[in-house]
Amino acid sequence: MKTIAILNGPNLDRLGKREPEVYGRTTLQDVENALRAEFSGRVNLEFFQSNHEGALIDRFSAWADAKISGLVINPGGLTHTSVALRDSLAGSDLPFVEVRISNVYKREEFRHRSFTAPISVGVITGLGIEGYFAAVRFLLQRSAS
Amino acid sequence: MKTIAILNGPNLDRLGKREPEVYGRTTLQDVENALRAEFSGRVNLEFFQSNHEGALIDRFSAWADAKISGLVINPGGLTHTSVALRDSLAGSDLPFVEVRISNVYKREEFRHRSFTAPISVGVITGLGIEGYFAAVRFLLQRSAS
Amino acid sequence: MKTIAILNGPNLDRLGKREPEVYGRTTLQDVENALRAEFSGRVNLEFFQSNHEGALIDRFSAWADAKISGLVINPGGLTHTSVALRDSLAGSDLPFVEVRISNVYKREEFRHRSFTAPISVGVITGLGIEGYFAAVRFLLQRSAS
Amino acid sequence: MKTIAILNGPNLDRLGKREPEVYGRTTLQDVENALRAEFSGRVNLEFFQSNHEGALIDRFSAWADAKISGLVINPGGLTHTSVALRDSLAGSDLPFVEVRISNVYKREEFRHRSFTAPISVGVITGLGIEGYFAAVRFLLQRSAS
Amino acid sequence: MKTIAILNGPNLDRLGKREPEVYGRTTLQDVENALRAEFSGRVNLEFFQSNHEGALIDRFSAWADAKISGLVINPGGLTHTSVALRDSLAGSDLPFVEVRISNVYKREEFRHRSFTAPISVGVITGLGIEGYFAAVRFLLQRSAS
Amino acid sequence: MKTIAILNGPNLDRLGKREPEVYGRTTLQDVENALRAEFSGRVNLEFFQSNHEGALIDRFSAWADAKISGLVINPGGLTHTSVALRDSLAGSDLPFVEVRISNVYKREEFRHRSFTAPISVGVITGLGIEGYFAAVRFLLQRSAS
Amino acid sequence: MKTIAILNGPNLDRLGKREPEVYGRTTLQDVENALRAEFSGRVNLEFFQSNHEGALIDRFSAWADAKISGLVINPGGLTHTSVALRDSLAGSDLPFVEVRISNVYKREEFRHRSFTAPISVGVITGLGIEGYFAAVRFLLQRSAS
Amino acid sequence: MKTIAILNGPNLDRLGKREPEVYGRTTLQDVENALRAEFSGRVNLEFFQSNHEGALIDRFSAWADAKISGLVINPGGLTHTSVALRDSLAGSDLPFVEVRISNVYKREEFRHRSFTAPISVGVITGLGIEGYFAAVRFLLQRSAS
Amino acid sequence: MKTIAILNGPNLDRLGKREPEVYGRTTLQDVENALRAEFSGRVNLEFFQSNHEGALIDRFSAWADAKISGLVINPGGLTHTSVALRDSLAGSDLPFVEVRISNVYKREEFRHRSFTAPISVGVITGLGIEGYFAAVRFLLQRSAS
Amino acid sequence: MKTIAILNGPNLDRLGKREPEVYGRTTLQDVENALRAEFSGRVNLEFFQSNHEGALIDRFSAWADAKISGLVINPGGLTHTSVALRDSLAGSDLPFVEVRISNVYKREEFRHRSFTAPISVGVITGLGIEGYFAAVRFLLQRSAS
Amino acid sequence: MKTIAILNGPNLDRLGKREPEVYGRTTLQDVENALRAEFSGRVNLEFFQSNHEGALIDRFSAWADAKISGLVINPGGLTHTSVALRDSLAGSDLPFVEVRISNVYKREEFRHRSFTAPISVGVITGLGIEGYFAAVRFLLQRSAS
Amino acid sequence: MKTIAILNGPNLDRLGKREPEVYGRTTLQDVENALRAEFSGRVNLEFFQSNHEGALIDRFSAWADAKISGLVINPGGLTHTSVALRDSLAGSDLPFVEVRISNVYKREEFRHRSFTAPISVGVITGLGIEGYFAAVRFLLQRSAS
Repeated sequence: MKTIAILNGPNLDRLGKREPEVYGRTTLQDVENALRAEFSGRVNLEFFQSNHEGALIDRFSAWADAKISGLVINPGGLTHTSVALRDSLAGSDLPFVEVRISNVYKREEFRHRSFTAPISVGVITGLGIEGYFAAVRFLLQRSAS
Repeated sequence: MKTIAILNGPNLDRLGKREPEVYGRTTLQDVENALRAEFSGRVNLEFFQSNHEGALIDRFSAWADAKISGLVINPGGLTHTSVALRDSLAGSDLPFVEVRISNVYKREEFRHRSFTAPISVGVITGLGIEGYFAAVRFLLQRSAS
Repeated sequence: MKTIAILNGPNLDRLGKREPEVYGRTTLQDVENALRAEFSGRVNLEFFQSNHEGALIDRFSAWADAKISGLVINPGGLTHTSVALRDSLAGSDLPFVEVRISNVYKREEFRHRSFTAPISVGVITGLGIEGYFAAVRFLLQRSAS
Repeated sequence: MKTIAILNGPNLDRLGKREPEVYGRTTLQDVENALRAEFSGRVNLEFFQSNHEGALIDRFSAWADAKISGLVINPGGLTHTSVALRDSLAGSDLPFVEVRISNVYKREEFRHRSFTAPISVGVITGLGIEGYFAAVRFLLQRSAS
Repeated sequence: MKTIAILNGPNLDRLGKREPEVYGRTTLQDVENALRAEFSGRVNLEFFQSNHEGALIDRFSAWADAKISGLVINPGGLTHTSVALRDSLAGSDLPFVEVRISNVYKREEFRHRSFTAPISVGVITGLGIEGYFAAVRFLLQRSAS
Repeated sequence: MKTIAILNGPNLDRLGKREPEVYGRTTLQDVENALRAEFSGRVNLEFFQSNHEGALIDRFSAWADAKISGLVINPGGLTHTSVALRDSLAGSDLPFVEVRISNVYKREEFRHRSFTAPISVGVITGLGIEGYFAAVRFLLQRSAS
Repeated sequence: MKTIAILNGPNLDRLGKREPEVYGRTTLQDVENALRAEFSGRVNLEFFQSNHEGALIDRFSAWADAKISGLVINPGGLTHTSVALRDSLAGSDLPFVEVRISNVYKREEFRHRSFTAPISVGVITGLGIEGYFAAVRFLLQRSAS
Repeated sequence: MKTIAILNGPNLDRLGKREPEVYGRTTLQDVENALRAEFSGRVNLEFFQSNHEGALIDRFSAWADAKISGLVINPGGLTHTSVALRDSLAGSDLPFVEVRISNVYKREEFRHRSFTAPISVGVITGLGIEGYFAAVRFLLQRSAS
Repeated sequence: MKTIAILNGPNLDRLGKREPEVYGRTTLQDVENALRAEFSGRVNLEFFQSNHEGALIDRFSAWADAKISGLVINPGGLTHTSVALRDSLAGSDLPFVEVRISNVYKREEFRHRSFTAPISVGVITGLGIEGYFAAVRFLLQRSAS
Repeated sequence: MKTIAILNGPNLDRLGKREPEVYGRTTLQDVENALRAEFSGRVNLEFFQSNHEGALIDRFSAWADAKISGLVINPGGLTHTSVALRDSLAGSDLPFVEVRISNVYKREEFRHRSFTAPISVGVITGLGIEGYFAAVRFLLQRSAS
Repeated sequence: MKTIAILNGPNLDRLGKREPEVYGRTTLQDVENALRAEFSGRVNLEFFQSNHEGALIDRFSAWADAKISGLVINPGGLTHTSVALRDSLAGSDLPFVEVRISNVYKREEFRHRSFTAPISVGVITGLGIEGYFAAVRFLLQRSAS
Repeated sequence: MKTIAILNGPNLDRLGKREPEVYGRTTLQDVENALRAEFSGRVNLEFFQSNHEGALIDRFSAWADAKISGLVINPGGLTHTSVALRDSLAGSDLPFVEVRISNVYKREEFRHRSFTAPISVGVITGLGIEGYFAAVRFLLQRSAS
């Protein structure tokens, strides 16, 4: 069975706790549980979250070495600032989909620039946690075809 | 049964015919057929495509008056240039998801600006025609909750 | 009796229907009726609205050929984006006043640029539908002097 | 009877004297006389002109304290440069209309920015001294409704 | 015999009528007649003009499907604003030359940007209607070699 | 006993009167009284407020000539626009602290630029009228050490 | 007794050691000791410094969960670059004051932008380590009122 | 005998007192005396200095009305910020030369923009107070020819 | 018989030798020969090429003094950087057409700016060496009419 | 014997593994071995690599405290984004040379800005791993002279 | 007797010949003669003009080596583009005054930037050929003091 | 034996003579001698310096035709301004390394742009004349492998 990894960056550990009027009350653990339930038996899912840029890069490198099938990434604020994360993602052939929970186009100008989006397969923004499901579904189809 | 409309802008009528190495060989009619098959019995789907900005606005206004449940829109090149289309979309309460077939972040700088994205619920870009399916699925869930 | 034309662009057909908290509940037909009532017997008024840039250009050209005395134009979103409309207006000697219902300076940055204003006689913005009345009154005075 | 004030900034004292080919030969005193004649018996009009930013702010504050009904302001060159004047106008609830005699959009780029327009009710530009009449008429209607 | 098409955008129907001091007194029909006379027996020429962006795209698509040999296009004001037209032109292999009657480099800054020029074979600007002749001549040579 | 001066620019005379929801209800006279009370016996305090840029420069020059120990300045809107005030401040060795009542970083873009801040010792912004106290306290310490 | 936390970012551990001509010879431990001495018995003070963005976010989150009363933060170079830190701070209701030891307005252009200042209560810059004292004093007053 | 006026703006009253290492020790009175001595019997010289923008405009208007022959102006910091002063100078036919004591090109970026230079006859910058002499000499020659 | 000159700037001496996949294998001598053959008996052609900006200016001045009828110029890289060459061309009444072999709009951003184009009659870009022929043909027609 | 340190930032641990067509197949361990072999007996070399910005700062501080002779640094993606790293390097007197393996000028615009280069002694870019050798050689010479 | 050199750049050899309505009818030789007449017996004057950037640099270097007292330079179009000329001027201690015949502030935006002005003593612009006289006069005074 | 050429642009002939505190006292002849000594017997070295852009292009073209192995170039100020030099370098396959003596990142903003760097193999900046040695060494290794 193939493996797809879900990588969450800074502050995603606060999902469901901070600004619930923006991000809802579902926690990251809830998202993990729901994803496992939805895709049970079809794909092996792995999860990692960290507030440390370096830890995200380290983990991504390990996954890339392990030749997993695809990645769903929500880099949080690092999307807009981290060339190092971009370089890490660019340095492998692993296809990935970028997910953002809120619609970044409604927010500050500096959130319209993404270092990671140009090297992704695609981006889903504003669909809430449904974005994670759509991304996994897409990667499953893609690796099946 | 609720109605969701799918509005396609300039050049989408050429889907599957122009630049197949970028956009694939699936035609817009194929997309319509596949969407109808996928969501048959769950939602009423309506389709419209035009290369005329004014025609898109006229049709959108009619749909907004008809109180449909949601809209999936791929404005094509108008995404980046049409304030009139934006104003039309902004002038109703109809929730909509913007879909772009290719990953706009990989393309020219002028494609990174979208007049319509900031007033959408969310945006899906780069997932190919799968984007339409994910958008309809999301709107169905959303109006159900 | 002289003729003054009133040309309304995209989405003005929705006046009084969309976003009434911003634009009020007066419809475009109401505006037409009130203008006819106000200036009855003093000037011949003609009206045209379209969501199609090309249709606006076609109609303007016909009016310019007919040698009418003046034009009041509310180009809607095309104000900010249409070089073609600007070229059409610039290609005649017909004096025109640009009217915008809401105060564009309070709104998004991209609404601060106008392609049509620099070739107009003047601009009235933010005075609601009263702007149309002031514009017709000005053009009447001007052609009288 | 209500009071509406007309505040004119730097160089407006030269109206009718400097650059008559641009601004005409009507003096500021002529404008005052004509406005008083036009609105006699319907509203109390007050006038003030100064080339001193501070004097304009001082006078505006006095008017705001006196709870007049509305203001017509032509800040002259200060429109484009004075945050202090803007702050003064923003610091009261007094509705005001900004009037500019010539069409600023035809002129230098730096005249396209206005610090005062975004906090005004609306702006009239390019209609010559008729702009003052239209502004007073609008404020009268507005405070009547 | 091969076919070359000549596509003219907004306001070119006014050629010879508007601003003759800039564009001369030759009408678009005159240009068509002269081109037919010049290239008679050597190439089949087709002409289309519209003020509607959508109509231009529709016609171009039909020509592209008909596998004509080349295109001469003067998009008028759309040159500077239409991503949709660019996408249409980019979506075929049809070689085209962009012609502009006046020298755009002498005019407003916003006319220096062209969405269509980067995907054209080349551009002729400022040579008046002679530009159309040079463009057809070039396309004939090119398809001959 | 040393002297520290407090210089307030345009609209600060309206403190406690305009926009109390932003600036509170404390008047400038209240601030003066409270500062005198707080620092009584430790430093001589002088106060000046004007809406006139020139008057502020004149007064500052007089204070600089009088060799006072330090200055607290809140230039109001002139902070963002006055090179003349900056030049005046720069032309002496008098150390000064810039105080702004509200947090300028939360406000319009044009308030993020300050002509006076780069030549100040430091800036306190957003701490309300407490900023004046902190500034005087700092200058006292500084001149003591 | 309430708790106020003092969070210091990259390179503040070098305070008093690096560039003493700019930052003085007081170490971060000296600052901590002096603050404890000054506010002893009035508030509980907690301190944390790290050169790791992720560690700062982790610690801040823990403090926010512990419902402390206020925060003084000197994010060092991260002020100008870290959206992740900003998001962390924005994701709680904890009021904070940003302190910078040197006057950033005297330094490189890139130091004039702050991601964290717009979501702070206020900013103190250029007052040296006195800034920390003024910030704690302000937060004490504020939570008292 | 003709009259030439010398108008000095904000902070020029401090000449010879502030920053003598930049501007030297010659006072404005010294300059006036030296100019009177140099041009005695050849031209009538008038002098005015103010830190108030409005006072400079008032005085300039009076001189323009008096039909003097020429003006030498050093607007100080207002050069870079005052549209009102520019409008005042532009509103007459009085030829003027702009003098700046220090070389503005060596200084901050914001000093490279001048609102008054584009409407002057010419500019002398960096030649110290010698600039005033060269300017008067030039205006004398010019009005003689 | 009239004279038309063809002036080629830096690196055009390498035509046909460098990057033949971009510029083809025709040398500058070939172009000269072909142009002489084509226009033999109708116009006198003169040629000059140099890699030295000053030499191009010297030669152009000589031609302008000799009152030739027209100029075709390909300034090479100097197009984008040389104000001196522009000034030289602007300082005569000699009409000229600018020719560029490759389509500059397809290339780097810095090639989109031209100092010489705004003072030319027109520009031909991207038509290869055919551009020289079209330019001569146009100048012949123009001087004939 | 003197000590020179070699500090490598994010993703350099992947050297020789990721994108070998860009960076070659030599690993970071290979580089370390080759450098030790080359400079054996002439200088003591120390190495550190991390994907964590904070860890790089911590290590650099330790080296700076240990008074080593020089530093070669390849900050990877942090070059373009890390003010914290810059501040750390700036806060010591340790001379350093920045090495970049690929030629950054050939790559994306955002790679042309470097926060660390302006405070380095010099930069070597595009010479592959030879850059490390040249940098060590230079630092040896420099500290010898 | 001291030596002052006058260096003129591209197109100044055409003075009095090209665009006499802008630059007058005085030739460069006339200027040389007049300057020699005016300063005869007080200073040795040397002249050089070239359209070649390299020749200007070569000559300047020779003059700098010869330890002349001062330089008057009119770099023509090179003012706005030549870093090489700037570097040449910067590489000596020779004081120089930049002279421009027409008022550059009235002309195109690209003429507002000067590479040479920031390293000059001062600049005279718009005073016609009188600028050369004023510059020599200034340099004489300066070297005398 | 292979040949490597060293090309030096404007003002490098002044090396060791101008600004010795920046560039040292070593002359260009010294550099040539030292390079010949260092690489004697391993490679044939050729040298050329000119202050004329055209002469540099002419010489480079000759070297390119002679099929030498590599080039070291220090274009001086032309680095930042010469598209013609770039085009010349781009028009051959000759690999070259760009050397700059001082660290351009420490200097003016306009020195951060290089037209030649993006088409070079790599760049060495700030290492003084050691940069020439490192560049030759690199080219030798490269052509050996």
